[in-house]
Amino acid sequence: MKKVLIIAASDSDLEVMCNAGKILDEFGIEYEMTISSAHRSPERTKELVEKAKNEEIKVIIAGAGMAAHLAGVIAAEFPLPVIGVPLESGVLSGVDALLSTMQMPPGVPVATMAINGSKNAGILAVQILATSDEALKQKIVEFRNKMSMAVQEKSLKLK
Amino acid sequence: MKKVLIIAASDSDLEVMCNAGKILDEFGIEYEMTISSAHRSPERTKELVEKAKNEEIKVIIAGAGMAAHLAGVIAAEFPLPVIGVPLESGVLSGVDALLSTMQMPPGVPVATMAINGSKNAGILAVQILATSDEALKQKIVEFRNKMSMAVQEKSLKLK
Amino acid sequence: MKKVLIIAASDSDLEVMCNAGKILDEFGIEYEMTISSAHRSPERTKELVEKAKNEEIKVIIAGAGMAAHLAGVIAAEFPLPVIGVPLESGVLSGVDALLSTMQMPPGVPVATMAINGSKNAGILAVQILATSDEALKQKIVEFRNKMSMAVQEKSLKLK
Amino acid sequence: MKKVLIIAASDSDLEVMCNAGKILDEFGIEYEMTISSAHRSPERTKELVEKAKNEEIKVIIAGAGMAAHLAGVIAAEFPLPVIGVPLESGVLSGVDALLSTMQMPPGVPVATMAINGSKNAGILAVQILATSDEALKQKIVEFRNKMSMAVQEKSLKLK
Amino acid sequence: MKKVLIIAASDSDLEVMCNAGKILDEFGIEYEMTISSAHRSPERTKELVEKAKNEEIKVIIAGAGMAAHLAGVIAAEFPLPVIGVPLESGVLSGVDALLSTMQMPPGVPVATMAINGSKNAGILAVQILATSDEALKQKIVEFRNKMSMAVQEKSLKLK
Amino acid sequence: MKKVLIIAASDSDLEVMCNAGKILDEFGIEYEMTISSAHRSPERTKELVEKAKNEEIKVIIAGAGMAAHLAGVIAAEFPLPVIGVPLESGVLSGVDALLSTMQMPPGVPVATMAINGSKNAGILAVQILATSDEALKQKIVEFRNKMSMAVQEKSLKLK
Amino acid sequence: MKKVLIIAASDSDLEVMCNAGKILDEFGIEYEMTISSAHRSPERTKELVEKAKNEEIKVIIAGAGMAAHLAGVIAAEFPLPVIGVPLESGVLSGVDALLSTMQMPPGVPVATMAINGSKNAGILAVQILATSDEALKQKIVEFRNKMSMAVQEKSLKLK
Amino acid sequence: MKKVLIIAASDSDLEVMCNAGKILDEFGIEYEMTISSAHRSPERTKELVEKAKNEEIKVIIAGAGMAAHLAGVIAAEFPLPVIGVPLESGVLSGVDALLSTMQMPPGVPVATMAINGSKNAGILAVQILATSDEALKQKIVEFRNKMSMAVQEKSLKLK
Repeated sequence: MKKVLIIAASDSDLEVMCNAGKILDEFGIEYEMTISSAHRSPERTKELVEKAKNEEIKVIIAGAGMAAHLAGVIAAEFPLPVIGVPLESGVLSGVDALLSTMQMPPGVPVATMAINGSKNAGILAVQILATSDEALKQKIVEFRNKMSMAVQEKSLKLK
Repeated sequence: MKKVLIIAASDSDLEVMCNAGKILDEFGIEYEMTISSAHRSPERTKELVEKAKNEEIKVIIAGAGMAAHLAGVIAAEFPLPVIGVPLESGVLSGVDALLSTMQMPPGVPVATMAINGSKNAGILAVQILATSDEALKQKIVEFRNKMSMAVQEKSLKLK
Repeated sequence: MKKVLIIAASDSDLEVMCNAGKILDEFGIEYEMTISSAHRSPERTKELVEKAKNEEIKVIIAGAGMAAHLAGVIAAEFPLPVIGVPLESGVLSGVDALLSTMQMPPGVPVATMAINGSKNAGILAVQILATSDEALKQKIVEFRNKMSMAVQEKSLKLK
Repeated sequence: MKKVLIIAASDSDLEVMCNAGKILDEFGIEYEMTISSAHRSPERTKELVEKAKNEEIKVIIAGAGMAAHLAGVIAAEFPLPVIGVPLESGVLSGVDALLSTMQMPPGVPVATMAINGSKNAGILAVQILATSDEALKQKIVEFRNKMSMAVQEKSLKLK
Repeated sequence: MKKVLIIAASDSDLEVMCNAGKILDEFGIEYEMTISSAHRSPERTKELVEKAKNEEIKVIIAGAGMAAHLAGVIAAEFPLPVIGVPLESGVLSGVDALLSTMQMPPGVPVATMAINGSKNAGILAVQILATSDEALKQKIVEFRNKMSMAVQEKSLKLK
Repeated sequence: MKKVLIIAASDSDLEVMCNAGKILDEFGIEYEMTISSAHRSPERTKELVEKAKNEEIKVIIAGAGMAAHLAGVIAAEFPLPVIGVPLESGVLSGVDALLSTMQMPPGVPVATMAINGSKNAGILAVQILATSDEALKQKIVEFRNKMSMAVQEKSLKLK
Repeated sequence: MKKVLIIAASDSDLEVMCNAGKILDEFGIEYEMTISSAHRSPERTKELVEKAKNEEIKVIIAGAGMAAHLAGVIAAEFPLPVIGVPLESGVLSGVDALLSTMQMPPGVPVATMAINGSKNAGILAVQILATSDEALKQKIVEFRNKMSMAVQEKSLKLK
Repeated sequence: MKKVLIIAASDSDLEVMCNAGKILDEFGIEYEMTISSAHRSPERTKELVEKAKNEEIKVIIAGAGMAAHLAGVIAAEFPLPVIGVPLESGVLSGVDALLSTMQMPPGVPVATMAINGSKNAGILAVQILATSDEALKQKIVEFRNKMSMAVQEKSLKLK
């Protein structure tokens, strides 16, 4: 059963957003990845959220650039966590997407990641699911340990 | 017959947004002013746009602060001009609203005004209507002349 | 009869500004495209605005970079809508042009697009003309539908 | 049983951070609120995270200003979701805290809220818990409906 | 004979711009101070520049806020030095005025001062006139000496 | 007799700063160009200013990047106009140099150009000298006319 | 024997800069506090550095606002550590001072503190002296412990 | 005996951070260089600081990008000077790292260098050690003289 829905605002955003999917694959979590824009396909976006509600999707990850309304628009309709990934696109290095995604008004949060932080979006989705899944939580601890050991190995090579 | 719809994202935005209405009054243009949020009342926002289409509204003016998605969300559904007014709200002096309103992706423009520039939103709406109304165009020329004479009068007082 | 005048501040801005023209072509709207600078050719700029008034041009689109005064200077003389496109030029990614174009004082609006947003400038010009042209309005609805379907097709390919 | 731990970086941050607690109260979720700094009391911060792990806390909310390391430092040690609230403090309006909280490197996400967005931090914590609690999810839907109706009521008063 | 023309973009800018005049008074230089806007009174601005050329004005000082086009528009028509003072006005602390004044394209310089730096605009005008007036140059040296001694006196009080 | 001294803060800044010299050559004004840093060679910088005073240099142009103190340090010692050119250098696109050059305290102005605006620095130096040289002023008028005609020619090619 | 010299760029900066002195008092370190500006009193600044060299001052702390050249100018002449405190002054919240102080070119470091971070400047001066003074180092450890305990006490009061 | 510890937050930061080591080599100061992250290897970071305390390391230099917590986290535990180098990494040109490193709260200073300013970090470490080492201080004076002469030589070549 799919637990996470990943929506990229455009096909040019797919390459970056795939990193969220890779993490979910690594943790063995089923997900769907698709494309929809808050501005160019508002109906489709709305339908995707309705479908996600019906299919009992637990987390939606949305990645968009420029005036990035996608995560906010989804968060306005979806009752469970929405993770927003501001994407570097156009000339402002993603600062426009960052503020459009993060500065949500009281009542409708978007869990915002770093600019282009799709990998972390995947990890946060895993952490959210792990709040009710002890085995998954254990996998995160192992993932962290590997990360820490990788640092140590690199510093050993240095000498 | 109403020609312009003004939407403020929250009641705290009404005071600033009223300046758009005052200009429309000054030029004798009928309008409706209401409140709706892209995030807290997405359904209502959608319905307002549908109603505007049916009532043959020519221009929508939308004012919002922070991650200001209102104008963009309306522009995604409304085929005629949408004017966005980024509002100073929260701690970032409206820079978040500015980028969220203006940095729209290709295909869905929002005619963006200065931060808190609701008066100019009213004037632009008049200018748009004046493209097919010679008398209105003449009124704009007079409005400009008065503005220019006010500068001259102030500089005379200076001496 | 020409309805839109496009002015690029320099020949190096033509490539980006052409996207406004392409949209007007797509919608079958006649326009003129030319070059003039607020700073290097102020007389010529003034004359172009006078000529536009006489020829009953309905909308002027102006694109400029850096301290982008072009749209504002035109808006000070032209009674109908002026659309400003801040261009990425020099080292500040167009942020200087954005603020110089958008932060107009009360009384003289410039309908500001995203940085390099010349395509949207063209669309907004069409929308403005469509406020008095039902057929054009219908074309915008179709244009939007195509845009929405293109998103759907791309997401189908994804699977 | 407590499910959420709220940590404010200093007693001057308590007033803002209390809004997260109020939301948790409103949804009937038990939590603990305390003070600890990543810089002035690093040991205490570490111990709080260890204790949170042992007590099976599901979500930690951390609020800090300036070079806001608190959420990141906690996220480095805690396997479940960490929500970061950048606080307006000092002279930079919270932009320093925003970037220090959000720009986390790949591997260690912090779910970042708007500047001073402690109310949304509370709501996101509820949403995270609701991924495994159908009744809570229902409460969020009701909370959203009330929010939407409040907008409608305010706009009725307008007329 | 008047040698300097000071133009404030609006009467609300007069208080700050007066500091330029005070310095000119202090150095015994005749000047005229007036009000004109690049946007609200473009004709008047053009006439003032023409008059300044005829009256052999040597330096024009222009102060404006927001999308501050005044100094640039004057510099496009006036062959001698134009000093621009970006003014804090509106919500962006004068950063918009700064970039609109300073980021002039090659060919048309504006000698830009700090935000609200009208006192320094006066001093620079004196320095420009002093390039051909030995007595004035001597006065600047004395002005500097006084400034330096004032620092010394303040530090003596400290002890 | 040399009238202008151009100082580049480092040899890597020479390429950009040469554009100031080219303009002076074009107007037939003698100048000296050299290298000195406010930080790496403070004594040399001081000596250059002393020498400039003795040689009756009328204008100093200083170009520097990053924490660009060069123009300010020279302005503190030189009684006549100092023109500062903030240079793009390092990772901040010259914004650091811009603020370090322009935000001078009351009493010590630096006539600041656009980032990398060395050509305009040359033109401003000419304008300053032209305040007491009618022939030079006439040359500026011709220079402007050529600039304006170049715009017209480019727009003719367009058709 | 005095070991630290504190220089405020103006008497209006004394109030903030005093916090550096208070810390030095608390650690029993002798210091001198004075006023001098890089721009208004360059000679005095130079003499103060010469005197500091002769008196075997170990650390200089310099606080300045706007185009804050003071710390950099001192660092160019003083061979031992210079600590820079960018001060909030004028309209840019100290961002101008921050970049002017911190973005020093390779070869001449300034140890930069947070905006208005004079207390930390005092602590860093103590830490520098503690690199050769075991007793002082011990005092820093105690200072830190007190700071950590203060956090704990505040959190106890919370309950 | 090693006196300085250099920690890079990741192996991709080594190339820039090596410049600190080169300077220490040039001044004959022994140091250790290693890799550790505040987020991916918090335990290792803590152990490195403990080891540094035991080995009587005098100065720690830490370089990190994005939400650069490394220097601050070390400063919270280490009683002697910590020098932070904000690194350009990701899409924000190091501005995120700058604010995360520099905006430390009162009580825990980090001596912050320019973005990528690792060479200056090395020099500041030498200056700190030179406060109790007259020979080292003499070497800094010579280093400065060479730097100043290099400027002079480059300017001679210019002629």
